[in-house]
Amino acid sequence: MRIIYEQKEMQGIADKYRNWDKTIGFVATMGYLHEGHLSLIREAKKDNDVVFVSIFVNPTQFSPDEDLDKYPRDFKRDEEMLKKEGVDFLFYPTVETMYPKNFQTYINVEELTKVLEGQSRPTHFRGVTTIVAKLFNITKPHKAYFGQKDAQQLIVIKRMVEDLNIDIEIVGMPIVRENDGLAMSSRNKYLSDKEREQAVCLHQALEKAKEMIDAGNYDVQKIKQEMEKVIYNYSIPKIDYISISNLTTLQELSQVEPSNTLISMAVFIGKTRLIDNLWI
Amino acid sequence: MRIIYEQKEMQGIADKYRNWDKTIGFVATMGYLHEGHLSLIREAKKDNDVVFVSIFVNPTQFSPDEDLDKYPRDFKRDEEMLKKEGVDFLFYPTVETMYPKNFQTYINVEELTKVLEGQSRPTHFRGVTTIVAKLFNITKPHKAYFGQKDAQQLIVIKRMVEDLNIDIEIVGMPIVRENDGLAMSSRNKYLSDKEREQAVCLHQALEKAKEMIDAGNYDVQKIKQEMEKVIYNYSIPKIDYISISNLTTLQELSQVEPSNTLISMAVFIGKTRLIDNLWI
Repeated sequence: MRIIYEQKEMQGIADKYRNWDKTIGFVATMGYLHEGHLSLIREAKKDNDVVFVSIFVNPTQFSPDEDLDKYPRDFKRDEEMLKKEGVDFLFYPTVETMYPKNFQTYINVEELTKVLEGQSRPTHFRGVTTIVAKLFNITKPHKAYFGQKDAQQLIVIKRMVEDLNIDIEIVGMPIVRENDGLAMSSRNKYLSDKEREQAVCLHQALEKAKEMIDAGNYDVQKIKQEMEKVIYNYSIPKIDYISISNLTTLQELSQVEPSNTLISMAVFIGKTRLIDNLWI
Repeated sequence: MRIIYEQKEMQGIADKYRNWDKTIGFVATMGYLHEGHLSLIREAKKDNDVVFVSIFVNPTQFSPDEDLDKYPRDFKRDEEMLKKEGVDFLFYPTVETMYPKNFQTYINVEELTKVLEGQSRPTHFRGVTTIVAKLFNITKPHKAYFGQKDAQQLIVIKRMVEDLNIDIEIVGMPIVRENDGLAMSSRNKYLSDKEREQAVCLHQALEKAKEMIDAGNYDVQKIKQEMEKVIYNYSIPKIDYISISNLTTLQELSQVEPSNTLISMAVFIGKTRLIDNLWI
């Protein structure tokens, strides 16, 4: 595995593979890799001739009061994991080269980012879409892989790709979970032992919703009430949001629409904000 | 010359030429072509193996009170001119395919678009950068050519390309003028005979500024006063702005900085708003 630090060098390598008629699969990460990332990389390996992965903790998607500085990092461990997976190129740029002085261009997906995570984190998606577009222009992939764990992010990126005619196929991959159901996330590292036990409440609440829907109960208010009960049973004091929305527009529903519904949530477990979701 | 209407087909053609190691030159236009456009196309022909031109009157760069509907169009004439120049592919999409229902993604170059044309036309550059990025993703050129007539547009596009790591070389080309100095523009068509005579005032004012600077007078206030005098001598009632700014930041200067100054202006000749500029 070669590590590339420079944008132009990465673009040159992408051009070379494209000229050789090789397909490029790309996985963008902020490092501190877990099985969720690896599932994307394995799918990329299966689908493409070469696989590029980026590690970049992107400052523009964190607000000033968020966890940019303490976001977990372990480059050596990540590097070993990527080598083991047979990744061909790791793009590992610095903040200074990605956001040079005078940087001032941002991409906004306007409607889809006003709700859910976007409502709680107003500048978050502007940072996400901007860095993803930059990484796409640098790695020039044929296909790019994103986890459904960040459901809104996946939907927003698909919208950007379609709206800006970006010629890349976006592949969404299922959430990878711990044995007890907790969705894998680099932020799980923040949890104390007690919080780690409580954190299973997100998945439990989603399971409760699924159970109700499977039993034919499509009433959104009732489902949300039952989900809240599950969470408060774990003595969790702060739910940021529970949403049951249309999968394309992300607008809130009053009735579940089978095959077209996203149940998503953000909950504070101690100081750590966790998200999880279910596609119905 | 082949005319392409569909985004995916255009991308496929671009991919094919790139695979054959052919370089693609691209000129984006809103049609109603004149010698200014042709100078870009000729440079593109000289520099590249194939030349793509687009004609698309982009609604998102017009505000509701601007001249979208009456913007001049003459496709047959444009087509003949492009054939004569040896253009290989003309991309000619519909508004509906470029901005489908649910379209909501825009690119903003934030600082550079707050001044000059951006101050007079607040949503204009958001429309320009978005459509240019879309056209770049559709035509996948190696080099793209823009006129210095739209000086701020050229500077904003260069900034976007650098900020988003778009792997395309942006080539700026000199203003092409009528015999009396009027900068070529599709909007010149709006001018009555009398207005056409008055319209030379923009170029005359720029010539006056150049003369003063050549004589060593770098005082911006004095230069602007003399430029205004030239314009009012033509009985022109409304100057939108006269600006003498830094060529990179577009911030107003108090003293001309040789090799780094843009003198630009917008003037209403009757109802028609004309722009012109000079790079010092």
